[in-house]
Amino acid sequence: MAKVQLVLNAGSSSLKFQVFVDDGADVPNRLYRGLFEGLGTDPHFKVKDHEGAVVGEERWPHDTAYGFEEALAYLSDWLAAHRGGHQLAAVGHRVVHGGPNYTHAVRLTPEIIAELDTLSPLAPLHQPRSLEPIRIIARRVPGLPQVAAFDTAFHRTQPEIAQAFAIPQSLTDAGVKRYGFHGLSYAYLATQFPHVDERLVHGKVVAAHLGSGASLGAYAASKSIATTMGFSALDGLVMGTRCGTIDAGVVFYLQRELGMSAPEAEHFLYTKCGLLGVSGISNDMRELREKAEAEPSAQRAIDLFVYRINREFGSLVAALGGIDALVFTAGIGENDAATRAEVIEAARWAGFELDPEANRSGATRITRGSGPQAYVIPTDEEWTIVREMRAVLAESRQDAGQI
Amino acid sequence: MAKVQLVLNAGSSSLKFQVFVDDGADVPNRLYRGLFEGLGTDPHFKVKDHEGAVVGEERWPHDTAYGFEEALAYLSDWLAAHRGGHQLAAVGHRVVHGGPNYTHAVRLTPEIIAELDTLSPLAPLHQPRSLEPIRIIARRVPGLPQVAAFDTAFHRTQPEIAQAFAIPQSLTDAGVKRYGFHGLSYAYLATQFPHVDERLVHGKVVAAHLGSGASLGAYAASKSIATTMGFSALDGLVMGTRCGTIDAGVVFYLQRELGMSAPEAEHFLYTKCGLLGVSGISNDMRELREKAEAEPSAQRAIDLFVYRINREFGSLVAALGGIDALVFTAGIGENDAATRAEVIEAARWAGFELDPEANRSGATRITRGSGPQAYVIPTDEEWTIVREMRAVLAESRQDAGQI
Repeated sequence: MAKVQLVLNAGSSSLKFQVFVDDGADVPNRLYRGLFEGLGTDPHFKVKDHEGAVVGEERWPHDTAYGFEEALAYLSDWLAAHRGGHQLAAVGHRVVHGGPNYTHAVRLTPEIIAELDTLSPLAPLHQPRSLEPIRIIARRVPGLPQVAAFDTAFHRTQPEIAQAFAIPQSLTDAGVKRYGFHGLSYAYLATQFPHVDERLVHGKVVAAHLGSGASLGAYAASKSIATTMGFSALDGLVMGTRCGTIDAGVVFYLQRELGMSAPEAEHFLYTKCGLLGVSGISNDMRELREKAEAEPSAQRAIDLFVYRINREFGSLVAALGGIDALVFTAGIGENDAATRAEVIEAARWAGFELDPEANRSGATRITRGSGPQAYVIPTDEEWTIVREMRAVLAESRQDAGQI
Repeated sequence: MAKVQLVLNAGSSSLKFQVFVDDGADVPNRLYRGLFEGLGTDPHFKVKDHEGAVVGEERWPHDTAYGFEEALAYLSDWLAAHRGGHQLAAVGHRVVHGGPNYTHAVRLTPEIIAELDTLSPLAPLHQPRSLEPIRIIARRVPGLPQVAAFDTAFHRTQPEIAQAFAIPQSLTDAGVKRYGFHGLSYAYLATQFPHVDERLVHGKVVAAHLGSGASLGAYAASKSIATTMGFSALDGLVMGTRCGTIDAGVVFYLQRELGMSAPEAEHFLYTKCGLLGVSGISNDMRELREKAEAEPSAQRAIDLFVYRINREFGSLVAALGGIDALVFTAGIGENDAATRAEVIEAARWAGFELDPEANRSGATRITRGSGPQAYVIPTDEEWTIVREMRAVLAESRQDAGQI
């Protein structure tokens, strides 16, 4: 039985997983990646090996009562039965919120799980869901080491002023601040800076994590100093279905004039806005690009997405006091050359000069000239989680040895 | 009886007024400025002449039933009785909201007043109050020409994309967009650009209107192309008691976790946040400056105010695609050399170089070097209103003549 480490990312109706060889290799050795989706409606399991070949798939009937509990049991059996069997050595979890105090990953104990649960008011839609698989595994396999890696942790190097809202201090102290998210992605990119360009390591860098969730993050010497996401995952850039930055007055308008309750308004801003809301067509940039010529609303959604990136980019250049480089990552950032080109053209004011050929051909550096440069670096959040998990487990073994 | 033009600015518990000679002078000839304050609690009337000497003052007992109706009757009598008497030729009003369609001042008719009232859902705290004196005067002196000048109108030159939120088009069409405010101030500054520096007229300029309300506005060739205030007067910079830009998630947190109703949350964000909320001491920058050395929370409020200006300034530089000049105006912008110095120091990344001596001594230009320059231009919103009023009345006389 090969020993493996499992990484889990629990969504509202999905459970993504990746499986890594439990070795000490500096570059994690990935065996499988897969997901359960349609949990609660049309459960579907699919797993691929490291070369992308489908090595397992299963569907359950519509409306099968199938949650994280069933999914984890199925996954455990699948791993035990597949290719001579795999034995779980540890599980790492993406946990959305680490609050103000968790600046690094942490080995989970019942006390820490309870503490993370107290952060649920800060992310009521996501935090309880993140903790569910942790609790299930702790119950099923009490001795199995589990580690939480936080999407907020990388941003805790930010100065207080970048994290503050202009609200009473008592409310700030109660945890109402700009936490920022996508930290596992930003942390991964920082590990790649030395391999891409030494200037990234020590310079003023903005990374554009452009996926169905989207944000910009500003690094000074590889540390986060500001980001566009705030207290919740609503703030900042236009996203697939989320509004991004919006005037609080609009929230009151939705409630007062349109008769929405607060939860209805929240649901509306999370799920009916962004690219989907503006276009009325799709939350998927690929589809919008295809339809932009025929459908003005698709073009409008794309234009607003790029315009807001440029505005927020300017705000981060101000936070950094200058700019050396811009890094694109995540679904749109890695795959949509047109969006990259439009963002870089909009950023000419900051000295960027697009290299259209490099951008189209999938090069790492996609600008030219003597000004700041732009790069594409594919992100890998699970890579960050497995590395953080290994560091935490090595530490805890060391601590144990010292007793 | 000298003919005069009256300019009114109705607040929640105050009525400011200015009186101008009804002549055709290009530079309006101001006779008096004054205000009623404490309406509803402790009414107090005070008026000064153009040299600042107090020429009238009156107090009424605590809890006297005294509203706009009584104040306007008193003012009318005072004007008729003072210095041989003044006869009202026209009244200009600052009206907070002109909606998406009013791009200029307008002569008020019953139909237009009714139309402006339909905009009240966009500014429920301010619009009905703006319309009250208009209705009172129309009833008392039906033939007297009245003109509305809008705080939103100057921004209607902005491209649609700068005004758009990432929300469904139906909601944008219903009027949920970034209107921007302080337009009467920005319009005034633009009229002064030719007298200050020709480069302002044609260049990329950001103006910082820093008062108890505060915003930044971006001009390309003297036209508004973006601003930090959005749908309501809550958005953008940190203000005296308003939060400025805040994550919509915070609004939901206030409602869900702290049990506030939507109106309570709105009241909280308008009146308990900003400089007052962060410092816990005062909404007045002068008081915060005095106490900053002894009180860390006062310094924190100042630092956040300046930090957010720099961030939003960067966002507007991106909107402009570069920057030629920065203009300071309004209470803090005109009078607080320390804030100006800190903002310019923060903007070194954009090429600004403070001239400390010029800044302290009250010069118009307060930077040096070959980069973009910063200026102080005192604002005068009533000057804009009286000029817009004259233009509208001249047009309507011309129209009348053409019948």
